[in-house]
Amino acid sequence: MPYRAPVAELRFVLDHVVAFDRVAATEMFAEATPETVDAILSEAGRMSEEVLAPLQRPGDLHPAHLENGVVRTSPGFAEGFRAVADGGWLGMSADPEFGGMGLPITLTMAVNEMMGSACLSLQLNPLMTQGQIEALEAHASDEMKALYIPKLISGEWCGTMNLTEPQAGSDVGALRTKAVPNGDGSYAITGQKIYISWGDNDFSANVCHLVLARLPDGAEGTRGISLFMVPKRIPDADGNPGAANDLRVVSLEHKMGLHGSPTAVMQYDGAQGWLVGEPHKGMAAMFTMMNNARLGVGVQGLSVAEAAMQHAIGYALERRQGRTHEGDGTILDHADVRRTVLSMKADTFAARAIAFDCAVSLDMAKATGDAAWRARGAFLTPIAKAFGTDTGIKVAGDGIQVHGGMGFIEETGAAQYLRDVRVTAIYEGTNGIQAMDLVGRKLADGGAAAFALLDEVSAFDHSDLRGAADDLRALTEWMVAQEMQDRFAGAVSYLNAFARVLGALHHLRAAEADGDRAPLARFAVNRMLPEARAEMAKARTGAEELFAVSNGVIAA
Amino acid sequence: MPYRAPVAELRFVLDHVVAFDRVAATEMFAEATPETVDAILSEAGRMSEEVLAPLQRPGDLHPAHLENGVVRTSPGFAEGFRAVADGGWLGMSADPEFGGMGLPITLTMAVNEMMGSACLSLQLNPLMTQGQIEALEAHASDEMKALYIPKLISGEWCGTMNLTEPQAGSDVGALRTKAVPNGDGSYAITGQKIYISWGDNDFSANVCHLVLARLPDGAEGTRGISLFMVPKRIPDADGNPGAANDLRVVSLEHKMGLHGSPTAVMQYDGAQGWLVGEPHKGMAAMFTMMNNARLGVGVQGLSVAEAAMQHAIGYALERRQGRTHEGDGTILDHADVRRTVLSMKADTFAARAIAFDCAVSLDMAKATGDAAWRARGAFLTPIAKAFGTDTGIKVAGDGIQVHGGMGFIEETGAAQYLRDVRVTAIYEGTNGIQAMDLVGRKLADGGAAAFALLDEVSAFDHSDLRGAADDLRALTEWMVAQEMQDRFAGAVSYLNAFARVLGALHHLRAAEADGDRAPLARFAVNRMLPEARAEMAKARTGAEELFAVSNGVIAA
Repeated sequence: MPYRAPVAELRFVLDHVVAFDRVAATEMFAEATPETVDAILSEAGRMSEEVLAPLQRPGDLHPAHLENGVVRTSPGFAEGFRAVADGGWLGMSADPEFGGMGLPITLTMAVNEMMGSACLSLQLNPLMTQGQIEALEAHASDEMKALYIPKLISGEWCGTMNLTEPQAGSDVGALRTKAVPNGDGSYAITGQKIYISWGDNDFSANVCHLVLARLPDGAEGTRGISLFMVPKRIPDADGNPGAANDLRVVSLEHKMGLHGSPTAVMQYDGAQGWLVGEPHKGMAAMFTMMNNARLGVGVQGLSVAEAAMQHAIGYALERRQGRTHEGDGTILDHADVRRTVLSMKADTFAARAIAFDCAVSLDMAKATGDAAWRARGAFLTPIAKAFGTDTGIKVAGDGIQVHGGMGFIEETGAAQYLRDVRVTAIYEGTNGIQAMDLVGRKLADGGAAAFALLDEVSAFDHSDLRGAADDLRALTEWMVAQEMQDRFAGAVSYLNAFARVLGALHHLRAAEADGDRAPLARFAVNRMLPEARAEMAKARTGAEELFAVSNGVIAA
Repeated sequence: MPYRAPVAELRFVLDHVVAFDRVAATEMFAEATPETVDAILSEAGRMSEEVLAPLQRPGDLHPAHLENGVVRTSPGFAEGFRAVADGGWLGMSADPEFGGMGLPITLTMAVNEMMGSACLSLQLNPLMTQGQIEALEAHASDEMKALYIPKLISGEWCGTMNLTEPQAGSDVGALRTKAVPNGDGSYAITGQKIYISWGDNDFSANVCHLVLARLPDGAEGTRGISLFMVPKRIPDADGNPGAANDLRVVSLEHKMGLHGSPTAVMQYDGAQGWLVGEPHKGMAAMFTMMNNARLGVGVQGLSVAEAAMQHAIGYALERRQGRTHEGDGTILDHADVRRTVLSMKADTFAARAIAFDCAVSLDMAKATGDAAWRARGAFLTPIAKAFGTDTGIKVAGDGIQVHGGMGFIEETGAAQYLRDVRVTAIYEGTNGIQAMDLVGRKLADGGAAAFALLDEVSAFDHSDLRGAADDLRALTEWMVAQEMQDRFAGAVSYLNAFARVLGALHHLRAAEADGDRAPLARFAVNRMLPEARAEMAKARTGAEELFAVSNGVIAA
């Protein structure tokens, strides 16, 4: 079954679950009228269905590869990228001063969702560029903004982010890449970076690398890191791509999935770069880029969940096996298949609601400057990232299972969803790192943001949900009182519990707005709340229990 | 880190968790002395480490393929198979009358576990042959036994099972393959079979297909199905492979994983076959083969869990990232990584204990003819299959996560475990089918087998465990009182709950026998029991809730 963009579902979630009208009511986002939203969703949906979805399997079968040092992208990807750029989807939320549309991030995420469902490996490219635009808007000089942002928005140039090195993964502070002043305001960047998504391509006139490196006087650890713009081709006086910079793609990774996205090892050999923001403040700048990218990656998980769900439902509605209790005899009438499909549907809805609820908070924070909105968005970001990607993986796995033996056969397409989405739980900070962020930095306010969210949950008149919210409140109080190591021991379970309580809330809100959704909401709540309780029990066990098992026993 | 056969761990589980000494105390299995067991485990372990493990990645990189109608297996697989055959591992549990060793199935499963950890795609071949030997022992004529079994045991010939057709997957009764009497005691078999694991190879002199087909007077559905032996080459008067039979491999599937195992579409065009067992009793005969194969597939899940766990622990003990709370600075000292690794270890232990507990029951039933042992084994089989394979998938996924970005890169090997093991939740009956078997056929005794197992759980002096057992007993009583459709709606959750309660019991038994295991047992119990409770809540929701969501809403 070909992918169909869930335009009506997105509209419903925006209107009736996450109250997007609040965003449209701000002065900053006054242009996001219902008509504009409809036009955006239907146009991006059409492009995703017609232009991007046909690239999904070719991208898998014909991976991006390196030919004499040049990256050759998968068949059709150049045209697909052009359609994305020409549609204006790269700069939807960018500043109009540089050619952006200034629309809410919520709408960018809705468009990203559809593009990612259609072809995740291609959609990763715009996601990188969108993040780079945000980082430049927040931290670059006016001159740099004027030079780069318009070309990134038009898709003439693409953006990447370069953090990881072999010895510096989650521990970014361990990086060794050096930046030495050239004396002319530029810097010579030397080092190797790995896992660079879309590190190069054969369809943009330039590739703009944002690279973390250490200045000669940079301290050890994260506090001594600076951010640099290092373009593949050095812009000439007219801002056109000029001389080749001293950087190259050493190799592309052979990955489990996402074959259409070239993942590069990049070598910088004294490449010319320009400082972005203040010296030694690179981590803060990079976090701007990473923070919204985290939500963007959560939405990638949602993208795959939606696509895998549609694919499995299409199959289940066609496939007939055995006698069934009732209905028209397809496998969807078998209780366990139906349960599986409903789980996929319930989880996908919850992931979408949580992601867009987070996006609305980010927009409200930007539009109002209100600290409570900012804290709400910051709290929801790691949840949206981890739950969205975990849901993508779970739903893709369920989709394979619904297909039975066909699910293991690549031609079916079900397996590709799982292979592609698997990395989303890893990149932009592993889901374990997201959970540590949640119980660490995001509870550093003593739980204020968490309690405010739980107040929203408790305000909904549903006794089981309120009971779960009360337990989660008590767990949050417990968490805040613990040493960091004990919080970390229960971090993933805490995040899982929170996501399920919020998921149940969103389902109930949907059912309140539309009675036809009540049966799915009942199904969802009856599963999410028991799971939340189990996760809460696991979240409280503490670190002592973990370290009581010796390394010797583990390695035995 | 190369795979190390967990000989001491297997020995511990056999001795202190599943009381294998009861098997060795029977007259039938008196030869399974501790010395024999040690010799078998260490010899099979050595072969798995040295001969089979080096084939794991070549099998993935160089899949079995079809060359002018002939299957070419992956590099080294012929030699690997020869080592398995020469070691005597194909006929370990086969009847000594035909060259087998007559050893307990428990020991075959221990050997299978190690072979599967080393190279799952190759190990699937012996698993098929072992199952065929069992089916022939139980149902074939003496003449057929004498002709086939010795050659299957020696590995001169290999065996396959042919059930599935495009329209007949889980619904085997829908098959269309025909068997027409030739008048000479043989039958002409015509039809197409799909998903035939190891449907052909280039290293055995013959391939013996057990094929389900319908005789002209066969009723519709499963009651009209008969089982036939259809060899690739028809044995001559001396029992040597003679003329080619009218069958062929049409194509091999392009699969997500298990690339070293050729999965064939088989075409039979009036191929000569011989009836195995009674006419129209083919399903019963096939179930003999499938029943132990189900345990065998559960052990495949365990195999991959063990291998993926070792691989991840090896990585975690080497990789250093960031400051840690205590310890020597590897990522294993980060609480969340440690939690993940301990989960892998706890789940793998539980899967192993459940599988071998099941195997001991099957051996005891065979040795004593006791109905209670038989019922115990029958009840545990779907649990061992589904929990074993779900654990394989979960642990392989955890293994990817522990590797971070490296986990998504194929060279690392972590991804292959997940790609390979994914199918084990599907073949030999999907895990949904296993759960339906559990709450259907296996509760048809009114819950007697379940209650007997729960009595064993309750006999262990641990208040939380007893509480969970009481709840599971109440749930079982509820299940037995429900219509089948309501049982099916909660089937997977019921199975999941049972597996976790049994897993907790086995961990506590291990801790009782060896105090060094108490910390891991505490960790495991603190997670498995809350999960069991959540699954119990989900198991009780019933089918009405599923069918309250309309197909229209699902497809929307």
